[in-house]
Amino acid sequence: MDKILRIQMGAEGGPKAKVEPLPAAYAGLGGRGLTSAIVAHEVPPSCHPLGEDNKLVIAPGLLSGSAAAMSGRLSVGCKSPLTGGIKEANAGGMPAQMLGRLGFAAVVLEGKPRDDTLYRIYLGKDKVEIRPDNRLRGLGNYAVAETMKAEYGDKVSLISIGPAGEMKMAAASVACTDMEFRPTRHAGRGGVGAVMGSKGVKVIVVDDTGCGVRRPQDPEAFKEANKKFVEGLRKHAVTGQGLPAYGTNVLTNVINEAGAYPTKNFMWGRFANCNKISGETQAETENARGGEGSATHGCHRGCVIRCSGTYYDKDGAYLTKQPEYETVWAFGGNCAIDDLDAIATLDRLCDDFGLDTIETGATVAVAMEAGVAAFGDAQAAIRLVKEIGAGTPLGRILGNGAAVTGRVYGVERVPVVKGQAMPAYDPRGVQGIGVTYATSTMGADHTAGYAVATNILGVGGNVNPLQPEGQVDLSRNLQIATAAIDATGMCLFIAFAIMDQPETFQALVNLINTFHGLKLTADDVTALGKKVLSLEREFNRKAGFTQAMDRLPDFFRKEKLPPHNVVFQVKDEELDRVFNW
Amino acid sequence: MDKILRIQMGAEGGPKAKVEPLPAAYAGLGGRGLTSAIVAHEVPPSCHPLGEDNKLVIAPGLLSGSAAAMSGRLSVGCKSPLTGGIKEANAGGMPAQMLGRLGFAAVVLEGKPRDDTLYRIYLGKDKVEIRPDNRLRGLGNYAVAETMKAEYGDKVSLISIGPAGEMKMAAASVACTDMEFRPTRHAGRGGVGAVMGSKGVKVIVVDDTGCGVRRPQDPEAFKEANKKFVEGLRKHAVTGQGLPAYGTNVLTNVINEAGAYPTKNFMWGRFANCNKISGETQAETENARGGEGSATHGCHRGCVIRCSGTYYDKDGAYLTKQPEYETVWAFGGNCAIDDLDAIATLDRLCDDFGLDTIETGATVAVAMEAGVAAFGDAQAAIRLVKEIGAGTPLGRILGNGAAVTGRVYGVERVPVVKGQAMPAYDPRGVQGIGVTYATSTMGADHTAGYAVATNILGVGGNVNPLQPEGQVDLSRNLQIATAAIDATGMCLFIAFAIMDQPETFQALVNLINTFHGLKLTADDVTALGKKVLSLEREFNRKAGFTQAMDRLPDFFRKEKLPPHNVVFQVKDEELDRVFNW
Repeated sequence: MDKILRIQMGAEGGPKAKVEPLPAAYAGLGGRGLTSAIVAHEVPPSCHPLGEDNKLVIAPGLLSGSAAAMSGRLSVGCKSPLTGGIKEANAGGMPAQMLGRLGFAAVVLEGKPRDDTLYRIYLGKDKVEIRPDNRLRGLGNYAVAETMKAEYGDKVSLISIGPAGEMKMAAASVACTDMEFRPTRHAGRGGVGAVMGSKGVKVIVVDDTGCGVRRPQDPEAFKEANKKFVEGLRKHAVTGQGLPAYGTNVLTNVINEAGAYPTKNFMWGRFANCNKISGETQAETENARGGEGSATHGCHRGCVIRCSGTYYDKDGAYLTKQPEYETVWAFGGNCAIDDLDAIATLDRLCDDFGLDTIETGATVAVAMEAGVAAFGDAQAAIRLVKEIGAGTPLGRILGNGAAVTGRVYGVERVPVVKGQAMPAYDPRGVQGIGVTYATSTMGADHTAGYAVATNILGVGGNVNPLQPEGQVDLSRNLQIATAAIDATGMCLFIAFAIMDQPETFQALVNLINTFHGLKLTADDVTALGKKVLSLEREFNRKAGFTQAMDRLPDFFRKEKLPPHNVVFQVKDEELDRVFNW
Repeated sequence: MDKILRIQMGAEGGPKAKVEPLPAAYAGLGGRGLTSAIVAHEVPPSCHPLGEDNKLVIAPGLLSGSAAAMSGRLSVGCKSPLTGGIKEANAGGMPAQMLGRLGFAAVVLEGKPRDDTLYRIYLGKDKVEIRPDNRLRGLGNYAVAETMKAEYGDKVSLISIGPAGEMKMAAASVACTDMEFRPTRHAGRGGVGAVMGSKGVKVIVVDDTGCGVRRPQDPEAFKEANKKFVEGLRKHAVTGQGLPAYGTNVLTNVINEAGAYPTKNFMWGRFANCNKISGETQAETENARGGEGSATHGCHRGCVIRCSGTYYDKDGAYLTKQPEYETVWAFGGNCAIDDLDAIATLDRLCDDFGLDTIETGATVAVAMEAGVAAFGDAQAAIRLVKEIGAGTPLGRILGNGAAVTGRVYGVERVPVVKGQAMPAYDPRGVQGIGVTYATSTMGADHTAGYAVATNILGVGGNVNPLQPEGQVDLSRNLQIATAAIDATGMCLFIAFAIMDQPETFQALVNLINTFHGLKLTADDVTALGKKVLSLEREFNRKAGFTQAMDRLPDFFRKEKLPPHNVVFQVKDEELDRVFNW
């Protein structure tokens, strides 16, 4: 993990790869820490996101490829075509672990191809191969996986884009294959797939054959730290019970009960039919259809939380991975759709076309508000998403996200911040997450500072979700902690356990220290989070972002959300305090 | 002109009108001065442009309705759905003179209708009538004029929107009828028509029957000033000869010769077939087809420049008003189309649908760059504009302008600033206008500080168009002067004469002084211009605009423009000096 692979896609005579030692300026950084540092240092903030000056930075975590639990997140960074600011989106799946074993701290796609040739890249032990392959044009991620499997078998892993990325749509994701070699784990947000498409790269095959597990500096202490870390995850209610039992969709009933479940394009806070699409119903359905195969499992090697599952259709055939809570919400309550099979089909279509399910579902709801389809019409939602894959004019609109769709149809109620759609928590019902949506460097993003944990789940303390008090401090602390965790490349779900259990937090620090031979303290972790946020904020400032963009759309301050009949109450001056530290 | 008419479209029980005295804070302001003051003081900068908090402010000039020459421009202001900033667009035609005679300094449409009823408003002597009239839905501006003519005759004037405004498209204009009661004079830029559409108002009928010409405070001195003013306009080469002979399209050959004629979506600076669409060819065509009727004439009562004309089709039937230079360019060189009849048809379609021809032509060129149609295909361009009128998904994309179209199709070369398309002068070939495009409060707008005058036409001095030196000072002075002229509500073309002839400038000041009983000096005029710009800048700042948005798109610094092979050279630090005064 001491190398960077740079591929100049615009080189004369075709793309050129160059492996270089990790520059000193980037030492000690992984995941989002590294992607944001490279983007902040190397990408001109004013550049066009689809132009030659943008870079797509793909970075595993600090412990990816090691035996550390939960260490397999892959960060993808660039200037975002959706927000116009800096972007990091991360995904599970297998590529991070394999890139780690290959020794790559980051793969950076640079420049712009001289024509519209589509390329595939193979990364193996001591081997980098870049080949034109226009046969891949227009293929869905599933077909890409089939094609690559025929050539390389299923022991490699893939980083790929579907047609949405090729069409440079701002809702396009980057797909990673999971442990079953299915392209189900997506770096979804911010249009990172469009940037990969603009670089002319369809798929990166990552093959760690012949590479062993990465070795820690102090193997015994590392093993001990990992044991404590895993124990901590297993004993916490969220990571040890809730997530393994039902996956992330365990939240549907919880958030609906809290009156913060955005329904019908953020019109209401509760969805009458939510029991039809809840995690409990989903698990029941999966178990009934899939038998043994439906047990939850990890999305990557080394996962001990195991929140993933498999969704089978009515005939018991594989349809898609178990849809995540945010996906079920985006196409479910948010579109007033209560049909789990339709939602699973939409999940599959998004994975195949390479689309962010949150942005896409939010977009369909905005289109419904515009009258393009009726709320609750599941088949219409499926037709709309198929339009995206087909690249029709309507599909082009939708594939560019909720803000563009609202703009094109003259819709006023568009739930976005910095051009990015809000996820599955109404900021009026969970005021802390509203602060995160408003102020995050990423646009509306629940993962940037998951105040839902404290506002609703009682993790890391208690802050009343319906009052403005305490939300700014909560969001600030969470955004700092999250930036640090994202910089380790660990799965963010570890946050539940490390927020509540000091010994589990210490075990995480010990994991990093014993692996890298460092002596980091808790303060260093906080400093790392602040450093990452500062880099990102500075990039955004130079790209033209101001405090005026650290705001929710007007209607969250005007329309009262039933059932609690609350508006978003955190004052602008308060929002401007989030980054005062 | 001491009254403001406010119409609250969202009032309970239906729209309510209220006439109030012009508040002291707005005294002495007209045109853009008044629209920008009202928007800056009354519209929350962060509001949604199509929401209840935005206001559409319609204001005649300080001398509208008087006998002063050139006094008939109508300013339309709001927060722009195209740029997200403050907007003033102005038009000729008859409504300004009639509103002036009715005594209205401004008509302000406020709030948001409670349902989708479409309204018509009648303004007569001591009469304001607001009526629902859903029969008007979907009508083009020409059909609206026919419908109103049947009811009111053709001695009234109209302010209306076409289907584009009803669909709240960001390229939608507000149409004013001309002296022939045709809806040919448009407040085109920035989507003011979408805001009128969002207020649910289809047409405002302005009827000055029974109102006399407005009387000056000092009739004799006023008459004398007007005489000198008119003499000045007649003796200047641009206003006395060029514009009357060929209309604004006299510029095609001039700008093409200068190598600054944006061709094929700003790819080249000269259009090989420009002689086929030049003002000279246009005049010849019009004369051959239309005989006497083709003589140039004014767009409003009191015009002495008379740059307007009439365009007849091959059979000698009226097709459209004489297309302006920017329109001929937008659909002509910029789309590589050399067919004047097709361009005139496009002009007619835009007037009828209620679309800004600059934004629409620039958008078609971006769509051509995206491969939606071929450059040079005139019939395809007509089809595309018809899609806008029909409101198909493709039409919705295009009707929202070049930036959205570029976004939706993933195009990198999109010639916009602050979301608004550049007009008919390449900023590399006329670097002074590039400074105006970059820094204007309005987005890319040639009328905000027409440096072409000095860079190319030798009016107001000489500054080399291809060098960066002197452009910032030039643009600053022009932006200040323009804001002042726009605040008088005079036709901007008077600028040519008042820049070169001090006695004509003095005559203008005397006109205002003798009419209103004031003692303004030249310094007061400058102060007025600065005041207007400062109000606008402050609004934009609060709406989130920063210096990072006072920039041209990257490609103008990277791609050399043939034939001079220049890039835009004015440095960012220089651009940031424009508003240092």
